[in-house]
Amino acid sequence: MTLGAAAHDVNVLRVRRMAIDTYQEFVIYMRRDCPVCASEGWNSQVRVHVANRGRTIVATLNVVGGELLASDEAGLSDAAWLALAAQDGDRARFSPSPPLDSFRRVRGKVYGARLDAEALSAIMKDITAGSYSPIHLSAFVTACAGGRLDLEETIALTRAMVSVGDQITWPKVPILDKHCVGGLPGNRTSMLVVPIVAACGAIVPKTSSRAITSPAGTADAMEVVAPVVLDLPAMRRVVEREGGCIVWGGSVRLSPADDLLIRVERPLDLDSEGQLVASVLSKKVAAGATHVLIDMPVGATAKVRSGEAARDLSRRLIDVGRAMDLAVQVVESDGSQPVGRGIGPALEARDVLAVLRQESDAPIDLCDRALLLAAQLLELGHTVPAGSGLDAARSVLASGSAWRKFAAICEAQGGFREPRQARYTLPIAAPRSGTVVAIDNRRLARIAKLTGAPVAPSAGLDFRSPLGSVIEAGQTLFTLHAESLGQLAYAKAYVAAGPPAVLLGSPDVAIDSAVSGQ
Amino acid sequence: MTLGAAAHDVNVLRVRRMAIDTYQEFVIYMRRDCPVCASEGWNSQVRVHVANRGRTIVATLNVVGGELLASDEAGLSDAAWLALAAQDGDRARFSPSPPLDSFRRVRGKVYGARLDAEALSAIMKDITAGSYSPIHLSAFVTACAGGRLDLEETIALTRAMVSVGDQITWPKVPILDKHCVGGLPGNRTSMLVVPIVAACGAIVPKTSSRAITSPAGTADAMEVVAPVVLDLPAMRRVVEREGGCIVWGGSVRLSPADDLLIRVERPLDLDSEGQLVASVLSKKVAAGATHVLIDMPVGATAKVRSGEAARDLSRRLIDVGRAMDLAVQVVESDGSQPVGRGIGPALEARDVLAVLRQESDAPIDLCDRALLLAAQLLELGHTVPAGSGLDAARSVLASGSAWRKFAAICEAQGGFREPRQARYTLPIAAPRSGTVVAIDNRRLARIAKLTGAPVAPSAGLDFRSPLGSVIEAGQTLFTLHAESLGQLAYAKAYVAAGPPAVLLGSPDVAIDSAVSGQ
Repeated sequence: MTLGAAAHDVNVLRVRRMAIDTYQEFVIYMRRDCPVCASEGWNSQVRVHVANRGRTIVATLNVVGGELLASDEAGLSDAAWLALAAQDGDRARFSPSPPLDSFRRVRGKVYGARLDAEALSAIMKDITAGSYSPIHLSAFVTACAGGRLDLEETIALTRAMVSVGDQITWPKVPILDKHCVGGLPGNRTSMLVVPIVAACGAIVPKTSSRAITSPAGTADAMEVVAPVVLDLPAMRRVVEREGGCIVWGGSVRLSPADDLLIRVERPLDLDSEGQLVASVLSKKVAAGATHVLIDMPVGATAKVRSGEAARDLSRRLIDVGRAMDLAVQVVESDGSQPVGRGIGPALEARDVLAVLRQESDAPIDLCDRALLLAAQLLELGHTVPAGSGLDAARSVLASGSAWRKFAAICEAQGGFREPRQARYTLPIAAPRSGTVVAIDNRRLARIAKLTGAPVAPSAGLDFRSPLGSVIEAGQTLFTLHAESLGQLAYAKAYVAAGPPAVLLGSPDVAIDSAVSGQ
Repeated sequence: MTLGAAAHDVNVLRVRRMAIDTYQEFVIYMRRDCPVCASEGWNSQVRVHVANRGRTIVATLNVVGGELLASDEAGLSDAAWLALAAQDGDRARFSPSPPLDSFRRVRGKVYGARLDAEALSAIMKDITAGSYSPIHLSAFVTACAGGRLDLEETIALTRAMVSVGDQITWPKVPILDKHCVGGLPGNRTSMLVVPIVAACGAIVPKTSSRAITSPAGTADAMEVVAPVVLDLPAMRRVVEREGGCIVWGGSVRLSPADDLLIRVERPLDLDSEGQLVASVLSKKVAAGATHVLIDMPVGATAKVRSGEAARDLSRRLIDVGRAMDLAVQVVESDGSQPVGRGIGPALEARDVLAVLRQESDAPIDLCDRALLLAAQLLELGHTVPAGSGLDAARSVLASGSAWRKFAAICEAQGGFREPRQARYTLPIAAPRSGTVVAIDNRRLARIAKLTGAPVAPSAGLDFRSPLGSVIEAGQTLFTLHAESLGQLAYAKAYVAAGPPAVLLGSPDVAIDSAVSGQ
């Protein structure tokens, strides 16, 4: 019997793009009666190794009925199609997935063992190769959450995350960078800090993320005014010419394991301290940064909710940074309310432009935060002498050189464009008079997402009732912006139904509720 | 503006069965340009609430290209189609998924909080409703593994698992049941214990599982000789007539949350003590059992690997049983090697029939284990006086009344049939002479699964080299059985490539390896 040959021949199928977007998960589709399923005895949910054009992935099998595929065809989800560089007519090879050895270490962690550098390196390699299913990723994230990664493990995880991706080197130091821990709507300071510090002569190659759980990431807001999807050589050209850039990190493959972990951290809303630190710092190390300033808004409805939590997280960021030869400085900032007025990509970009162009109605709070961060970053990187950062930052903003630098960066990235206004708007009015005593950032972010942000770039909300504002009945608290009536309706219904995002108090009643928008 | 009406109308789509088997996961497919996606701003991986014919599910969205669906259609995976009782032309309603409140408690558990009865009840309800995605299920399983469920939590979990499913009540007590913790190939004693104790006059309504990670579950082996998919009234009729049954537990919806948890426990290979106990006992309580005997094979390559682990698990089973008014007795048994000769549904059924029919070559070890378990179960349930169980069991086996009872149960379940022999067989020969000194149960199970078991019922292996056997070079260690040449080839290649499943030693060399099948 020549069994080997028989087994070999039946494991090849023509591939077809199913045009099914499974997010980043690799899924393959096969008929139960196709030669591969029949000979392997495979069922749905089996993990399958797929080889095509010298590339390999591990994918989850979905068995399909006869209408979707021919019996000599296998369907690929969009992510699998791209990862295998597949083209129509390709014949891919399917075989049982090899055992996921590194997952034994995750299992060990569940049972209380520590993860050493070797284990974390193997786990990050397998995750980056796409060998972890969402179920495996979720178990890894859960096993590390709840403070279960100590300092040494966090350092090893950061190193492992750096090593599985690209790394940028720059011909000179220092290389400055900034990061915001997030959770505060409208806190779009990177688009100001980068041109300010670059205008002062520093090098600041900023890569930014798109929104994960928020109505806008810096990459989303920046994309409103300039292209952000640049490959590494293009990004390098921009930085060499202008000293800075603001590009989407996803296109330069820095710390790619992080992007895959986020896919489960988001639905789980589990964001462990250790993984947060490794996520932030691995991207900075991979980008070649030497000095990193971290903006950490603290507030009851921000991501970091207490001063104690902020200090713990700061210490971990600084300690892990030191182990990675990265000077880290953390600035705790006020996280009690949105920054500026716009919440959503285009509305936030509008605020940024107003500050850079020094328009008379530019949001002062956004301007002040950006100047403070730029000043500290300039001093941290020794671009200017200690104590002179704020003067330097103010000076380039006032002279217009920060705006010219921003415009030049946009041009270098592919061309500047003005933000567009949304098609539909709806003001939400205060049902009665009072003073604004509290703001629920999470609820405002949720409302902005319901209007369509960040997928609809001009959607979001224009916030007009900061803490301490004295509001008359009927006055606008914020205005909804949307690109479709359906989304406007959903956001409006959500505003009307739930607890108020903006709390109004009066001299008599300390805190009272403002249901609005009816 | 009448925004409310606009939002309402666009959220209904015609449903279509996509004929995609996503295992138990609910997946819906929509075009990006369909009115629902467009108005909601949904992307792939969003969790969506779907209502149809008075039923509701929460499903994961996959966005698809234009060819698969019309723009007013939504596709449903097989599991979603069945759960919604959908029919062609139905118009289902799609809305954003409500927040998964119970998952907050899972998050709390990750951060070290305890799970109380209320939390576990809410979690089990949401899991049973299908509201937990595989990512959420994985996080729950991981958060509870590693000994993180204490006695009280395990009791509460067991109660919660019982309460979300059907519960059977019987007109009289005692109701006997048995369970095997598993991990030992060929240990098919339930198919013997049930007819023996029923022949002695006891009531034993046995529900069994299909294979999860093994080459055969009791339901798979029983299905070779009789139908096992019976609904609750049919199962009740069998038990009322014959005193016992052996049916598939999946068709009677006892502890349905367990079936969903297994879907992630299997790929993770994470099976925490607390969840194992709750899984086993919730099914027994739901089936109305009052006295349960648990067979716990202990061995280096069995599920329970040490005497200490066995005692811990026994104590937990007995303590939780007591809280549920269930008398639990645990029998530790030898887990060092397979029981009987067959591994795989039909081959195991063949061994069972040989014992019942008292054929001269019936496997003695399988017979002895079954008699011992039947004896203890008879005494535990006070069907016979203490000390007389073994005599009673032996007597009904020798008289043929156990065989007649088994045949009658099969007839009552829908009719008896003889097992079928596999189309292809391949003996695996010892490469040299020696004595069998060790057996790797896990490797034997893997080989049997590669031959196609349990999906191919007659596939598996016939094991002929128990511990202590004196083997000549060229003698058959075991024979592969398969229904396809491809599967036979895979199993053969796996045998040849890896470490030996059967270790041969000689007087000179204590343990030596036997690579075979080349």
